[in-house]
Amino acid sequence: MSCSVLGIGLAGFGTVGSGVWKILEEHGRLIESRSQGSAAMEIRKIAVRDLSKKREGNTPAELFTTSLMEVVENPSVDIVVELIGGTEAAFDLVTKALKAGKPVVTGNKALLAERGTELFAISKETNTPIYFEAAVAGGIPIIKAVQQSLVGNQIESIAGIINGTSNYILQRMTEAGLSYPEALKEAKDLGYAEADETLDVNGWDAAHKAIILGSIAHGFLINYKNVYVRGIEKVTPLDIQFASDLGYVVKLLSLVIANKDGGIEIRTQPSFLSKTHILASVHDVFNAVAIKGDHLGESLFYGRGAGQGPTASSVVSDLVEATRGSETNMGFLPYKKTGDLVDIDDTATSYYVRFSVTDRPGVIADIASVLAKHEIGISGTHSPVDADNPDAEFVEMVFLLHTCPFGRLKLALAEVENLDCLTNRPVVFRIEAL
Amino acid sequence: MSCSVLGIGLAGFGTVGSGVWKILEEHGRLIESRSQGSAAMEIRKIAVRDLSKKREGNTPAELFTTSLMEVVENPSVDIVVELIGGTEAAFDLVTKALKAGKPVVTGNKALLAERGTELFAISKETNTPIYFEAAVAGGIPIIKAVQQSLVGNQIESIAGIINGTSNYILQRMTEAGLSYPEALKEAKDLGYAEADETLDVNGWDAAHKAIILGSIAHGFLINYKNVYVRGIEKVTPLDIQFASDLGYVVKLLSLVIANKDGGIEIRTQPSFLSKTHILASVHDVFNAVAIKGDHLGESLFYGRGAGQGPTASSVVSDLVEATRGSETNMGFLPYKKTGDLVDIDDTATSYYVRFSVTDRPGVIADIASVLAKHEIGISGTHSPVDADNPDAEFVEMVFLLHTCPFGRLKLALAEVENLDCLTNRPVVFRIEAL
Repeated sequence: MSCSVLGIGLAGFGTVGSGVWKILEEHGRLIESRSQGSAAMEIRKIAVRDLSKKREGNTPAELFTTSLMEVVENPSVDIVVELIGGTEAAFDLVTKALKAGKPVVTGNKALLAERGTELFAISKETNTPIYFEAAVAGGIPIIKAVQQSLVGNQIESIAGIINGTSNYILQRMTEAGLSYPEALKEAKDLGYAEADETLDVNGWDAAHKAIILGSIAHGFLINYKNVYVRGIEKVTPLDIQFASDLGYVVKLLSLVIANKDGGIEIRTQPSFLSKTHILASVHDVFNAVAIKGDHLGESLFYGRGAGQGPTASSVVSDLVEATRGSETNMGFLPYKKTGDLVDIDDTATSYYVRFSVTDRPGVIADIASVLAKHEIGISGTHSPVDADNPDAEFVEMVFLLHTCPFGRLKLALAEVENLDCLTNRPVVFRIEAL
Repeated sequence: MSCSVLGIGLAGFGTVGSGVWKILEEHGRLIESRSQGSAAMEIRKIAVRDLSKKREGNTPAELFTTSLMEVVENPSVDIVVELIGGTEAAFDLVTKALKAGKPVVTGNKALLAERGTELFAISKETNTPIYFEAAVAGGIPIIKAVQQSLVGNQIESIAGIINGTSNYILQRMTEAGLSYPEALKEAKDLGYAEADETLDVNGWDAAHKAIILGSIAHGFLINYKNVYVRGIEKVTPLDIQFASDLGYVVKLLSLVIANKDGGIEIRTQPSFLSKTHILASVHDVFNAVAIKGDHLGESLFYGRGAGQGPTASSVVSDLVEATRGSETNMGFLPYKKTGDLVDIDDTATSYYVRFSVTDRPGVIADIASVLAKHEIGISGTHSPVDADNPDAEFVEMVFLLHTCPFGRLKLALAEVENLDCLTNRPVVFRIEAL
């Protein structure tokens, strides 16, 4: 057991970076004790944009630099923590650290999801590990769970609610009947959505995390260009209401599913989920990931997916991991060049489809016969009549459809759209039977 | 990275042992790939009681022995897996393995909870680790979560439903109004309770697990003799019904709580828990552990707490950990000699107390004035009248009591018991506000 103190270089000192400082200051001794002395560490360099900015806590001025590269180059730094975000400067920084033989701890999901192939190749080449627990679901130790705890399992499925902002917005639309813009505004007012909410609500933040989870679960780096991603921006209170009528909630679900024949389905989209499923009870900005292993069976990991404490807590846990040395501890490395991603058109679930139609005789027959022609079965319908206006001219008609490939549904709906009774494009949600 | 194959010796080849064999046979190559070649392993010796018993799968006859010690002594064995249970032979086996410098993987909670002090001392002395993920909550990676993921946190509380049998019995009493003996019989018929259910229903199986969790969370070995444990044998359908009327469920809860002043409360008992708490949704034989860290905040881990696949999955995960070598990877070692356990009489919660009384004028006044004398506040009462028999002579009267130390409540109840209106001893449940 080595008892020398390891030097940490922090690139970025925002919410998470200063959280790491806090934890090491408060609990440095505790961490040393718990690791039997092997995880003695000290922050020795911190790169920031603006030296003049006032910093919380008593961080010595001499630690700060505006040079990112100094964090790597400083000879007293043994491990580099990348918390600057983005995929350009962060890529250069991480590459440089690995090439210098300095293990990297990062919370940058976009970096890993978009440039993981390059980075893990360098990691392997240089025999220097990258740790990234903080990149997925904040304080939930889901990376270690997949990598270590499920090491003896084929991972049959991963289903996650891994974007807190979206979860909060959908919840408020469900509970309070808010429109999407109203719920988004509320989330912003509460600090649950960033000034630029794009990546949260368009699904890509969750998709990046799912790509990372899928990659470590299946051993090859999933190309983000082949991943199906839809956001929550177009979800309406009407569909949420209908979902509820039918026993479902709408959740932004990220799924990685291994098919029987070895293909991997990966998708992130707002989906219908039974109200009785445990993921349906994930509220507010909490995250949860349900994993099914062939021997382990079902398990679920739940906690705070963002915020200073939880994310910094994951960074510190990775730092301790990094102090253990890379000899038999490279963290994750891909062990397959590639894998078989299932085309979204070939993925099959059941569906909720809402048609906005002109209410004239024959409408249902017209739509149903197009569906029948494409061999899509109807398992149920839902079209509540407006009690005050039973003869309304335009109505919403919901069909619940039996499981079929998404591609076949698309063909059928393209044909339905040609019917003159439609006043709007059909609205589709997958019903996920997890 | 070492690529030599490590030899495993299995002591015990029941449900879990044969599950380990299965996983290594099915997924040995996958495990090697995932660990970049460092976790190549092979089972080389299996100790069983009866050589003539027919074994599942194609285990070669020459691996089997009836000698426990051969599993340790065989020079081709590098890591010893102890799955025989009990605290005598298992203790000798583990001791011998550690002294031979062979890391141990065990699923034996009683052994660790009762003889951990001795075993971890030998582990430290011999610089040889003991891994025990399988000892607590089967397939839930709760040991690694506490040790690794929360390494940068003071662990404020651990609340677990960690005995599946009890959880199932209480659930059936709740759902179907079964009596305890009826629900127990059902659990046995379904294979959810063992032939001898004692340790499951008297709370000790859960308590052993809580002792292990508390010990790794707080760095010292908790003496099982100082732990408060109550089982579910005396829980009645009536109290479950009243709990439900009041918005609670009855769960066998194991708690490890760190007080502000550093004291540790540890107890296992059937308790009232709000129906809205996430642990209230843990059904059937599932287990769940909620952990609060000072930086991480709340998190929850949920999954199968027993059974072949889940438990063997944890053993295999520990085996991979063990292949990484002990140089900076001793797993858990106590880092404090002792800690301050809070006496059960000094632990404070609110309470549900049910009094069976003769219905005569003055009863409520008599009881209430004893409580008042002991400065115990009443926050609510509940005593449903039998609609068909409003003048019944004997009634059940429930008082909900404000938070006070358990010792004070005991004194007050001893005095209440002297009142001649009581027809039975008062029934007490803690109301846990997690």
